[in-house]
Amino acid sequence: MESLIARAELEPKRVRLPLSAFPALENDLLLRAARSEPTPRAPVWMMRQAGRYLPEYMELRVMADFFKVCRTPELACRVSLQPLERFTTLDAVIIFSDILVVPQAMGMEVQMVKGKGPVFPSPLVTPADVAKLNLTPDIESTLGYVFDALNLTRERIAGRVPLIGFCGGPWTLMAYMVEGAGTRTFAKCKAWLYNYPAESHALLAAMSEILVLYLIGQRNAGAQLVQVFESWAGELPRHLFDEFVFPYVQLIARKVKAACPELPMTIFGRGIEHAFPKLAAETLYDVVGLDWQMDPTIVRATVASAAPDRSVALQGNLDPCALYGTEAVIRAEVKRMLDAFGVPGTPGYIANLGHGMQPTHDPEKAGIFIKAVQELSAAPKLP
Amino acid sequence: MESLIARAELEPKRVRLPLSAFPALENDLLLRAARSEPTPRAPVWMMRQAGRYLPEYMELRVMADFFKVCRTPELACRVSLQPLERFTTLDAVIIFSDILVVPQAMGMEVQMVKGKGPVFPSPLVTPADVAKLNLTPDIESTLGYVFDALNLTRERIAGRVPLIGFCGGPWTLMAYMVEGAGTRTFAKCKAWLYNYPAESHALLAAMSEILVLYLIGQRNAGAQLVQVFESWAGELPRHLFDEFVFPYVQLIARKVKAACPELPMTIFGRGIEHAFPKLAAETLYDVVGLDWQMDPTIVRATVASAAPDRSVALQGNLDPCALYGTEAVIRAEVKRMLDAFGVPGTPGYIANLGHGMQPTHDPEKAGIFIKAVQELSAAPKLP
Repeated sequence: MESLIARAELEPKRVRLPLSAFPALENDLLLRAARSEPTPRAPVWMMRQAGRYLPEYMELRVMADFFKVCRTPELACRVSLQPLERFTTLDAVIIFSDILVVPQAMGMEVQMVKGKGPVFPSPLVTPADVAKLNLTPDIESTLGYVFDALNLTRERIAGRVPLIGFCGGPWTLMAYMVEGAGTRTFAKCKAWLYNYPAESHALLAAMSEILVLYLIGQRNAGAQLVQVFESWAGELPRHLFDEFVFPYVQLIARKVKAACPELPMTIFGRGIEHAFPKLAAETLYDVVGLDWQMDPTIVRATVASAAPDRSVALQGNLDPCALYGTEAVIRAEVKRMLDAFGVPGTPGYIANLGHGMQPTHDPEKAGIFIKAVQELSAAPKLP
Repeated sequence: MESLIARAELEPKRVRLPLSAFPALENDLLLRAARSEPTPRAPVWMMRQAGRYLPEYMELRVMADFFKVCRTPELACRVSLQPLERFTTLDAVIIFSDILVVPQAMGMEVQMVKGKGPVFPSPLVTPADVAKLNLTPDIESTLGYVFDALNLTRERIAGRVPLIGFCGGPWTLMAYMVEGAGTRTFAKCKAWLYNYPAESHALLAAMSEILVLYLIGQRNAGAQLVQVFESWAGELPRHLFDEFVFPYVQLIARKVKAACPELPMTIFGRGIEHAFPKLAAETLYDVVGLDWQMDPTIVRATVASAAPDRSVALQGNLDPCALYGTEAVIRAEVKRMLDAFGVPGTPGYIANLGHGMQPTHDPEKAGIFIKAVQELSAAPKLP
C-alpha cells in the first residue's frame, strides 16, 4: 500500500483522454432515470459510498492524509472505484473528493482533523477577510487534479456505469468558510447574512461563478451527472433561503446547462422540502434529492403540481440508520420507500439514502440495501 | 457568591407553599394566549432565557456545577429569576433545570462536560441495560428538588408573571440515554428503534408514565404552563415518528390534562411540521411551538384546517441568529415574524425564538427582541 502511494506521487502527469475516447455505457440506468425515462428497475447508489465504512478505504487512508487522497488522481480514482469493486451491481460511481476543495482553490487552508472533521485555521471573520480570497481562481491550475481524477476514473470504469461529479452549494461553502468548522448553531455564518447582506451576496455570487466553471470542467473531464450538495440550506429561515440560496443554485444550473445542456444535474439539501416547488418550477435541475425525513408521496405530488411542464426526477431517501437494522429490516424499509415513490411504475426515480453512509456502517448492510432496491424496484415480469 | 452557595446548601428544607398561597397573576398574557384568548399584545419569553449568555448566570456557574444548580432550589430559583430581573417586562419565567434530570431519576449518571454538553458514562447499549434502570422511580424523592425550585420560584415571582415548567419528550430522553451524549447521526438510538422495537416501546411507555407524574408534580408545586421538549423528534423518518413519538406525546397530554384540565401545555420539536395536523387534531396540547425554519403563515393554515373544532395557539419562531443582528435587523425580523403570525389581529400567539438562546448571544439583543415584540405586536390604539 505504501509503495502504491509512493508510486502514485511519482507518476508522470497523465494526459487526459477526450470524452470521445470513452466507451458507450453498458449500464445507463442512472442517466435514464435522471431524465425521467422509464427504467426496468431503479438505479441505486449511495451518498458517501466511498469512505470510512469500507475497510479497504481505511487501509489506504492510514497511509495518506484525506486531502492528499483527493489531490492524487491515482488514489482518488482507486477510492472512487472501491464501492464498485465490492458491490459490482452498483449503478454509479461518484468521484472521491470533498466540497471544500473549492475554498482551497480560493486560497483558504483546510485541514481534516480526526474526530472533528474539516477545520479552517483562518476562517472569514469579517467581510474584510474576503480580500484575502482569490475570487477568480484559475480553475485548471487550482482544481485540475479533480478533473484528472475524474478522467482517470472514467477510463477505469470502462463504460460499466456512469461517473458522478459534485460540488458544494455556495451557501454551504460560505458557512464553512465563516464558521471555520462544523457547527450546530450556525451563529457566525448566519450573522453574516443578517449583518453583511451585500458582502454575503458578493461572496456567494463569486463562488457561484467558480462552481459553474468547476462543474463544466468536471463534465469535460468525464463526469456524466453532477450533484450540488447545498447541505446546510435547511438551516436557514425561508426568507434567507429565498434570498441567499435559491438565486445561486438556480444560476449554477442555468449556466452549467447553457454550456452542457445534456448533463443531468441533481440538487440536494437537508430540510429544504419547502423549496421543492420552486426548485422544480424555476430551475433546470433534473433531479431533486430527498432527505430521510421527507415523505416521498407528498414530494411527488408537490413537485408534479409545481412543475406540470417538465419532468423532475427524485432521488433518495432511505434513513441511513435503517442500515443498522437486520436484513429483514432493511428489505422492509426499502419496500416502504419504493412504495412511497410509486416504484415500480413511476419513472424518474434514483434510489439512494437520505444522507451519506456513516463510518460505523457495516459494508455488508450496504450490499443488502443495493440488492433489495434492485430486486424490489423491478417491474414484475409479464407472463 | 460563594457564601450564597454555601448558605443555599446549608439551609433547612423549606416547606412548599400550597397553590392557594400564591397571589393572583398581574400579567397573565402568556396563559391567555395559550388558551387562544385575545391579548392586547403578544406575550414573549425565550427558550433557554436563563443561561450562559447572561453574565450573572456565568458568575454563579463558576461556583457551582450545572446539576448542582439544578438540584439546589435556592440556586435554581435565582437563576430562573435572572432574566426577569434583567428584562423586567418579560412575560414569563421558565424554571432553570434540564430535561436529563429524568434519566437521573431513573438511575442514570449524567455529567455536564464543558464544551461537550451532557455525557452519560454508562449509556444504554442493549435492551438488557434497561434492567439497570428504575422504571417506576418515586417522583417526590427523585425529582422533588425540581418541585422545591418551582415552588420557591413561584413564591419569589410574587404574581408578576406565570412560571413555566418543562420536561423532555420520551424519545429525546431515550436518544440521550442510548447515545450517551449529543450526536449528529443518531446512529445508536435509531438502531434501537429498528432492531428492538418492542423494547423501545416498553422504555418509551415507562418514561411517559414518569413524565406524566413529573408534570403533574410540577403543576402542583407551582408551574402554570408546561412545555414538552421533544427536541429530536424531527430526526426520525415520519413512520418512526408516528410509531415511536406521537403516541407517547399524545398520551402525556391526555393523562396530564385528565389530572390538571386547566394546565396549558405546549409541545415543541424541531423539524416536526409534518406532525402539526395530528398534534392539533388528535392531542390535547394547547400550544404548538414552531422552529425558526417553519413558515408561520403555512402552519397557521395547516393547524386551523386540521383542527377546526378547537383553538391551538402557536409559539415561536424567530431565528435565534437574528439576535446577532443590529437593532434595526432584529426589529425588522420581529416585524416579519409577527406579520407571518397575523399579529396583531390573530389571538393565540406567544412570541419566542425558534430555538434556545445561544451562549454567544449579547443580553442587550435579547432586550431589543423583547421590546420589539411588545411594541410591534400591540393592537393600534383606537382614536
